[in-house]
Amino acid sequence: MRQDRNEPLIDRPDPSSGEALYLQVARAVEEALRAGRLQVGDRLPAERELALDLGVSRTTVTGAYQELQARGILRGHVGRGTTVVGTPPDARHAALPWAQRIAPVAIEGMQVAYTAPDGPDVIGFGVGLPDPRLYPVETLDSLLAALPRGDGGLYNPAPAWGDPVLRETLSGWLRSRGIRATPEEILVTTGGQQGLNVLARAFLTPGDVVLTESPTYPGAFLTFRWAGADVVGVPVDHDGVRVDALEESLARYRPKLVYLIPAFQNPTGAVLTAERRRRVLELAIQFRVPVVESDLYGDLFFEQEPPAALKAQDASGVVIYQGGGSKLGLPGLRVGWLVAPMPAMAALTVAKTFEDLHTAALTQRLAAAFIGSPHVERHLARLRVECRVRRDALVGALRQHCPRLRFRVPGGSYYAWAMLPAPLTADTLLPVALEHGVGVRPGSAFSPNGGGADHIRLCYAALPPDRIVEGARRLGRAMEQALARLGAAPVPGKPVSAGVV
Amino acid sequence: MRQDRNEPLIDRPDPSSGEALYLQVARAVEEALRAGRLQVGDRLPAERELALDLGVSRTTVTGAYQELQARGILRGHVGRGTTVVGTPPDARHAALPWAQRIAPVAIEGMQVAYTAPDGPDVIGFGVGLPDPRLYPVETLDSLLAALPRGDGGLYNPAPAWGDPVLRETLSGWLRSRGIRATPEEILVTTGGQQGLNVLARAFLTPGDVVLTESPTYPGAFLTFRWAGADVVGVPVDHDGVRVDALEESLARYRPKLVYLIPAFQNPTGAVLTAERRRRVLELAIQFRVPVVESDLYGDLFFEQEPPAALKAQDASGVVIYQGGGSKLGLPGLRVGWLVAPMPAMAALTVAKTFEDLHTAALTQRLAAAFIGSPHVERHLARLRVECRVRRDALVGALRQHCPRLRFRVPGGSYYAWAMLPAPLTADTLLPVALEHGVGVRPGSAFSPNGGGADHIRLCYAALPPDRIVEGARRLGRAMEQALARLGAAPVPGKPVSAGVV
Repeated sequence: MRQDRNEPLIDRPDPSSGEALYLQVARAVEEALRAGRLQVGDRLPAERELALDLGVSRTTVTGAYQELQARGILRGHVGRGTTVVGTPPDARHAALPWAQRIAPVAIEGMQVAYTAPDGPDVIGFGVGLPDPRLYPVETLDSLLAALPRGDGGLYNPAPAWGDPVLRETLSGWLRSRGIRATPEEILVTTGGQQGLNVLARAFLTPGDVVLTESPTYPGAFLTFRWAGADVVGVPVDHDGVRVDALEESLARYRPKLVYLIPAFQNPTGAVLTAERRRRVLELAIQFRVPVVESDLYGDLFFEQEPPAALKAQDASGVVIYQGGGSKLGLPGLRVGWLVAPMPAMAALTVAKTFEDLHTAALTQRLAAAFIGSPHVERHLARLRVECRVRRDALVGALRQHCPRLRFRVPGGSYYAWAMLPAPLTADTLLPVALEHGVGVRPGSAFSPNGGGADHIRLCYAALPPDRIVEGARRLGRAMEQALARLGAAPVPGKPVSAGVV
Repeated sequence: MRQDRNEPLIDRPDPSSGEALYLQVARAVEEALRAGRLQVGDRLPAERELALDLGVSRTTVTGAYQELQARGILRGHVGRGTTVVGTPPDARHAALPWAQRIAPVAIEGMQVAYTAPDGPDVIGFGVGLPDPRLYPVETLDSLLAALPRGDGGLYNPAPAWGDPVLRETLSGWLRSRGIRATPEEILVTTGGQQGLNVLARAFLTPGDVVLTESPTYPGAFLTFRWAGADVVGVPVDHDGVRVDALEESLARYRPKLVYLIPAFQNPTGAVLTAERRRRVLELAIQFRVPVVESDLYGDLFFEQEPPAALKAQDASGVVIYQGGGSKLGLPGLRVGWLVAPMPAMAALTVAKTFEDLHTAALTQRLAAAFIGSPHVERHLARLRVECRVRRDALVGALRQHCPRLRFRVPGGSYYAWAMLPAPLTADTLLPVALEHGVGVRPGSAFSPNGGGADHIRLCYAALPPDRIVEGARRLGRAMEQALARLGAAPVPGKPVSAGVV
């Protein structure tokens, strides 16, 4: 939704015009689409809310939405509101009903990808990236200037499996993390997200099942779904994925892949215990299923380092480990890696080839120069300190300004995962929060099989402490107002014990 | 196939050992797999040929192949030979039958991707890239050094739709090619191959049909197939795709996308005529189907510039245009672009997001600096001259050394598409050609629906003229030998008229 906060999303109808009000509202929605204020995939305001905004009855809005559903422009989903799925006729593009050509999973992707409408005057807890001020810009500038030139090696096509300098560097760096991998067991990908596509492409056929944690990173389960797989979520508690539920789902669904984030799970922040890690490996062997270990956050611990990676204990070669530069302060370079047993490498390499042929040598060489230097550990140390300061700022501010939010203090990485007070849901909160100038991600975006509406994810890594405090203040006001609109009494929250506040 | 030409691929059996010869051969194939000389996706030598090499009867090889099929290691395809689909047990990886976890379409991808085994002493006509000596390395070095630094803009995450500087630059550059596109109508992709994945992701659902030319670029039809679509090939003649056949297939299959390479079609080199271009646009409007125009080669003409791009004539907004830097002497930067009507942009952008979040700002800024400078036209002019010299070298050498090859002189781009004399097929020719130290791509790799075995594609852009002449000499000898093995009389070819030699 590309909404200028000073311009109304949908124009008010004119009761004196003689045209039925519901048709005027329908036309105003079409105009918003033509003007680009609304786009395919956007969710419309709830009927009650829009009725309030436009000064009309709820029946009028219901009529307008029904009319637009009949025209193929809107679609209503129980529990997910009303979504734009089509566009009104436009003289220039009338030849082709583009909106009807879009794959349903792409529309689902738009709903997930566009739910964080952070504007310039919005304090955005929504986006999962660190503050650009934390990037090692000067270091990268000097490493870039010093890269060996002249042989064309920076611009030549690189091998599909990755630049040899980077693979060698990664092999050494992984060893310092307890993971023994030869350069031949490392596949370079164009960022971590592409790694997921490579895995999907190598292993999944429509109809296959993938198990993930629930909630989890939406880029993962939507990627698997895009490959035609059915994704089944396995619940996470404070100790990571529940291994009893994992065993049940393995037996029931016989999945082709299991995708886990054992260290500082996104979005919950849970760390899989050493005991559960052993059990996951046993189950992978028992059910003969590859386990993908996404480890983008393991190095960003604040107090206690997570247990050794699954891959570090993988004597049987059942784990494919995923790492990436984005979370190491190289977010814009788009360099990631998969570490896999040799029998899987040929399939992964050809999958990578069909993704984008190869990753640019220039970015690979720069990543290798960074990871192979002492800069990387210094940068990680700084990132840990800075993120911890921001975590503390958020935790303190939420306790003060949002006492009714329940959350566990995250021990690393970028995110807090917070439960809203009943009956408040993220769907109700989000538009109010935006009015107050604060953005968060709704929990539903992280749920592969529905649910999660009672949670929100807050990324504290992107903002300086003073903005975090102001954001929490705005969020607190938005919560109280949203609760008041729902008719719930704005009971002042009482402080609860640290750790599960 | 990672074969050192001095080391035998498969060890000879020992008749005095007492073990059945066919079991010894089967074990030798497994050893080659364990040693990495053979990999999943490789094609094995034809039975007759391996029998000759090993000094055993053909029955022995047949028995060995059957045994390995029973063990799940080989699979035989009529007309495509015998392919490695599994690996022998290995103590370290016995926990998981990796080979059986690989998606069938990935195995098909390996067969296509791995059929060009160009070694260091092989003259490779197989790979579709220009000679690295033609890359503008010094220009890129100086542009890179001069990129504005200090604001972190080179390392920050870029917007999913692309860096604003590059989009603005491309808008201007496309205008010089007759294509009017605002920056907002341009989506930057991480190379052209990713553009195909973005299109598949935005528009295709398993079971959909895509029409492509036949033959065509395998990276395209396999990408569409990987998305679960059925690909139907439409025949190409010297004037490009046959519009009568296109109309028939549109009516019959009601496809979700049509993918065409109108200018110097890969692999045939055909240029779609102006009249057929008009017809294609009419058909797209009539059947309300998006046409993807892949235009990676249009600027690389030798004598006559191709007619205006479909997109330049697309008044109704039914064409999605695809360009990329790889064919402009920026092959290693991985920067491409899609130009699409606005109603398609939201879906394409979210598809791109799920591919790799965004393309690295560093490579986008470098590409923008190159494309926005006078260097790009100078470089294209040089590329045209150099590729024409190489084309002429290949045409002359094929006429002299391979007089029985039938081909049309390509008017631009990198490839010659040649028909083998009956009964010779690429399957028979390729191993013999490799023995003679020359690599080509088999026509079957370019056929979305089978066939093409009687053609080969030769890329002349990658080699200097003297290597091209030597390669043609080797190819001529290999053809005669392969024909002789087939029992065909080695009739000396008679020169035929230019243009269809």
